Amino acid sequence: MRKWLAADFTAKYNNVFFSNNEEDVIHHPDVEAVLICSPTSAHAKSLELALAAGKHIFCEKPMDLSLETTTTLASIAAQSDVKLMMGFNRRFDPDFMKARETVRDGKVGNVQIVKITSRDPGLPPIDYIKNSGGLFMDMAIHDFDMARYMMNKQVVEVFAKGLVMVDHAVADAGDIDTALTTLTFEDGTYAVIDNSRKAVYGYDQRIEVFGSAGMVQVENNQHNRNILYNETGIHQALPLDFFMDRYAESYLREMGLFIESLLHNKPVPVGAADALAATRIAVAAKKSMLEGRPVAIADVLATTMKPTSNGIAVAS
Amino acid sequence: MRKWLAADFTAKYNNVFFSNNEEDVIHHPDVEAVLICSPTSAHAKSLELALAAGKHIFCEKPMDLSLETTTTLASIAAQSDVKLMMGFNRRFDPDFMKARETVRDGKVGNVQIVKITSRDPGLPPIDYIKNSGGLFMDMAIHDFDMARYMMNKQVVEVFAKGLVMVDHAVADAGDIDTALTTLTFEDGTYAVIDNSRKAVYGYDQRIEVFGSAGMVQVENNQHNRNILYNETGIHQALPLDFFMDRYAESYLREMGLFIESLLHNKPVPVGAADALAATRIAVAAKKSMLEGRPVAIADVLATTMKPTSNGIAVAS
Amino acid sequence: MRKWLAADFTAKYNNVFFSNNEEDVIHHPDVEAVLICSPTSAHAKSLELALAAGKHIFCEKPMDLSLETTTTLASIAAQSDVKLMMGFNRRFDPDFMKARETVRDGKVGNVQIVKITSRDPGLPPIDYIKNSGGLFMDMAIHDFDMARYMMNKQVVEVFAKGLVMVDHAVADAGDIDTALTTLTFEDGTYAVIDNSRKAVYGYDQRIEVFGSAGMVQVENNQHNRNILYNETGIHQALPLDFFMDRYAESYLREMGLFIESLLHNKPVPVGAADALAATRIAVAAKKSMLEGRPVAIADVLATTMKPTSNGIAVAS
Amino acid sequence: MRKWLAADFTAKYNNVFFSNNEEDVIHHPDVEAVLICSPTSAHAKSLELALAAGKHIFCEKPMDLSLETTTTLASIAAQSDVKLMMGFNRRFDPDFMKARETVRDGKVGNVQIVKITSRDPGLPPIDYIKNSGGLFMDMAIHDFDMARYMMNKQVVEVFAKGLVMVDHAVADAGDIDTALTTLTFEDGTYAVIDNSRKAVYGYDQRIEVFGSAGMVQVENNQHNRNILYNETGIHQALPLDFFMDRYAESYLREMGLFIESLLHNKPVPVGAADALAATRIAVAAKKSMLEGRPVAIADVLATTMKPTSNGIAVAS
Repeated sequence: MRKWLAADFTAKYNNVFFSNNEEDVIHHPDVEAVLICSPTSAHAKSLELALAAGKHIFCEKPMDLSLETTTTLASIAAQSDVKLMMGFNRRFDPDFMKARETVRDGKVGNVQIVKITSRDPGLPPIDYIKNSGGLFMDMAIHDFDMARYMMNKQVVEVFAKGLVMVDHAVADAGDIDTALTTLTFEDGTYAVIDNSRKAVYGYDQRIEVFGSAGMVQVENNQHNRNILYNETGIHQALPLDFFMDRYAESYLREMGLFIESLLHNKPVPVGAADALAATRIAVAAKKSMLEGRPVAIADVLATTMKPTSNGIAVAS
Repeated sequence: MRKWLAADFTAKYNNVFFSNNEEDVIHHPDVEAVLICSPTSAHAKSLELALAAGKHIFCEKPMDLSLETTTTLASIAAQSDVKLMMGFNRRFDPDFMKARETVRDGKVGNVQIVKITSRDPGLPPIDYIKNSGGLFMDMAIHDFDMARYMMNKQVVEVFAKGLVMVDHAVADAGDIDTALTTLTFEDGTYAVIDNSRKAVYGYDQRIEVFGSAGMVQVENNQHNRNILYNETGIHQALPLDFFMDRYAESYLREMGLFIESLLHNKPVPVGAADALAATRIAVAAKKSMLEGRPVAIADVLATTMKPTSNGIAVAS
Repeated sequence: MRKWLAADFTAKYNNVFFSNNEEDVIHHPDVEAVLICSPTSAHAKSLELALAAGKHIFCEKPMDLSLETTTTLASIAAQSDVKLMMGFNRRFDPDFMKARETVRDGKVGNVQIVKITSRDPGLPPIDYIKNSGGLFMDMAIHDFDMARYMMNKQVVEVFAKGLVMVDHAVADAGDIDTALTTLTFEDGTYAVIDNSRKAVYGYDQRIEVFGSAGMVQVENNQHNRNILYNETGIHQALPLDFFMDRYAESYLREMGLFIESLLHNKPVPVGAADALAATRIAVAAKKSMLEGRPVAIADVLATTMKPTSNGIAVAS
Repeated sequence: MRKWLAADFTAKYNNVFFSNNEEDVIHHPDVEAVLICSPTSAHAKSLELALAAGKHIFCEKPMDLSLETTTTLASIAAQSDVKLMMGFNRRFDPDFMKARETVRDGKVGNVQIVKITSRDPGLPPIDYIKNSGGLFMDMAIHDFDMARYMMNKQVVEVFAKGLVMVDHAVADAGDIDTALTTLTFEDGTYAVIDNSRKAVYGYDQRIEVFGSAGMVQVENNQHNRNILYNETGIHQALPLDFFMDRYAESYLREMGLFIESLLHNKPVPVGAADALAATRIAVAAKKSMLEGRPVAIADVLATTMKPTSNGIAVAS
């Protein structure tokens, strides 16, 4: 992939300041807010600089792969006047927002369980996986955040199973490609999340919330609304298979809400505390998988897991 | 409604030429193509001017309410080098395009019938209706074009029934608000189109094409993908209820294809001949309704109907 | 097909009277009601005998292919104390009954249109077709009855188109295999019925009723409730493809209601007047198709059509 | 509830032997097979008698609430020539059978996860619950068997969470009404089962099987196939809400297969070993819930759990 230089853009866009040095941008007197959309490994430094400079921040999730760093950054953010919004874009998907509204309005009653199906359409490159922080930190973290968003409660315990079903190269990279995670909330209710790196039929993103008064389901978005009947069956189009298509609207709304929170001095809809909570769940999930037991969130508040061996199961 | 003046825009957009005189625009040396998006009654004059000036044209449907004028304009366009694209936007809806592709690829075999359900979410203002040319010319004309698009054949006969079910004010305005039209194609196959000015549940835009090898259906686009289960039933969101939302994507694609046809000197995807064909069907439909009999398209080629009385039925 | 003799059954079922002579059965003193399930051509004689003998009757539709005979039989039935129920079994399908209830309860408001899709899974034997009375009398008659049942109004006009699309042998047999019929009810509202003798995807039996307050749809019954997602799409099972499976429940309910009307001296749910009304529509449909114009029911009250030529269209 | 006596039936059915003493029935020389459909607490004795008498057996699930007794009975059955079929009727539901066939035929590839949603429409009487053996043994046992049936693999580990959400009286009775169970199969793959004693929208019985080549879902059976569109939404009928309706067909097929296995000396489709396997899972599930950790099936092979305290969680 070609590396873009500031000069490539300066030539094209008049009167816009470009730089390959993030400090030049963050400290530029005209800059009031920064968008951190770099690889995860670069987030922490940018966050530190922007927080120190008092610039408002939109940052892609997660803040950092390390729970200590995440905790530190969240703490700094909490004490500053900087607005820090985290890019958990799925919260802004219109269908999920509608489901959240249905739950919040009590239309399903007291919620007993949230079931999230979250399967990618295909394996990312192994090099990506190696630096991703693992399935729980990289992929399931969206679902952990979604479970918290739907329930509006704190998670207290995690039980996770992980498996390599898609490609043995994933195991060689120290990761899993298939997972099943059970979350227990503070009031004893549950979420169950089923992840796979590869659903051959597309990007499977469904949610079901069941409670004492009913159930709400969010179905997949499909490529089209056509139904074909022929001798072999009744056929419909597959779910959208690329996250940029599936969540196109959520990215737009996300950015709109960030701008709105700056213009009208409103709280950001998802912040550092949410990123920290989701990161804790991811850390607990990995620990649970490796240790074969449920892990309390309280146990991962202060420390990160230091696994001494690779305990990943490969499907026989 | 406030009348916009060129001056309102000149102040806002630098270096853009605005005028309230269409001739100034059409004859402007920098203008290579014009978009005619005015009320139908103004189309003919603009079309004439642009055709005479040799400027490419995008024109909202129909060309004119009169079949003679439409015939004349289509004839002029056919003999000129001007690219004239007509705004039958529904042809560019992704779902309908996919269905058309399915039909064209033979996946439903020899088509026997096209069924179009086309119901508006609510009655337009009566003043609009008075100048609309009537339900067949104003509303069903989209469906007549769609039937031709799906079948890729010529219509030879029309049988139409019309009724006032929604509001008696429509009858007073000389129009109907409910219709059922049967089209017969050159090979004896059919289309049936069911129109209403008011579906309380939203904008109902469905198509079904049945043939010897199967059937393809295009379902409505709904407000969201949520399903709520409660004690009273299983509930889904209504179809989108505004044509600008329902056909947002079709408008974008339509304009993209117009620009592409200009840039790469390709034929426009829908032209004056299509507008003429749809207009003939609309004229035949009204004639059929008023005379209570099927009307051959051949009978409306040269003349328009001059009804001597208002023969509209009002539901008892 | 083997011809069954009374002796075959006498040997098997003790204490049950069997005969190959219908008069022996109808006049048997223990017989209080007769079920006429013979070919249509035999109905009239059995009906006459049973009516004369004062025995209650369940008779498969239609009473007779001739409108005169049907009129005469319906008239005799109307003047007798015999309960005569006609086998329009689809009225007793649970899904259609529920839709009828929804309409009757006003949940779709004032009905504007009933749309019936009625396609068989395959062509019957040509010999059957030759003696069937034709598509309108044999197949569409169910749909004509269903339209009346859903609307609870009288039909005043019929416009029908017919075509041979499935097999030229049907044309040779003097019949059509594809039809589109528009019915106009006494208050100006409509039904549209789309028939085909062959839907490759199964037995397509759908109804849609649209009115001022909403719409009710009856969907097909499928072979199973499984949905398969794979690389090529999302796949469901086809509609049931045999009328004995699709309408199994309706036959049971039908017979139950006949027995109930006898045991509790209640009116039969569908009688001779309904058979006569549907037969008139079938006769009018054929006349409309052959003459290429809408036909008023009033015009077929007294006479049957005597076509002097075969005016059937064959798809080019 | 009235207690039926043999005399009630003897008077009504001629030539049929009735007795209130099961030994009289089991030892009757004309009896070749017995159906054990009594309360669970009576199963063991009947099974022992019938096994000893060498009579074929159909027995409702489970064999017994005690794992020891179940193990003993399964062992005796395995060593005898008696055909013993266990009433896991859901295996014979046509939709589930079709899904099983799809999985077995490799249409979803290597299975990674089975997801079962199994919610009752309402709480049974508390007296029933007290003697039921608890949610895992009484209700979820069907789902444990279904997971085994779909996967055709052995379960090696169980992690279960249980909760009282529906009614505190259930906690007082020492049981739970809401559960989430994760099963791990011998090859590392999973099943997740979500149970509730009360879904206000009916009897929710869905299955989803996901694998490397796709996914198959079994949807609920609904009261009817009608869809109502009105100003408030698009509405469908609820799932069937009574197990006798939902599984009517499965009971018929189950008994047909039992009879067929006797008549043609074929193996029964589900036997004592299956009952034992499901019972072990139920025992492990309860143990897991009470001990807050995953439990290996190997740990419950020989002993049953003897909880010294009621560890049930009640939702706060």
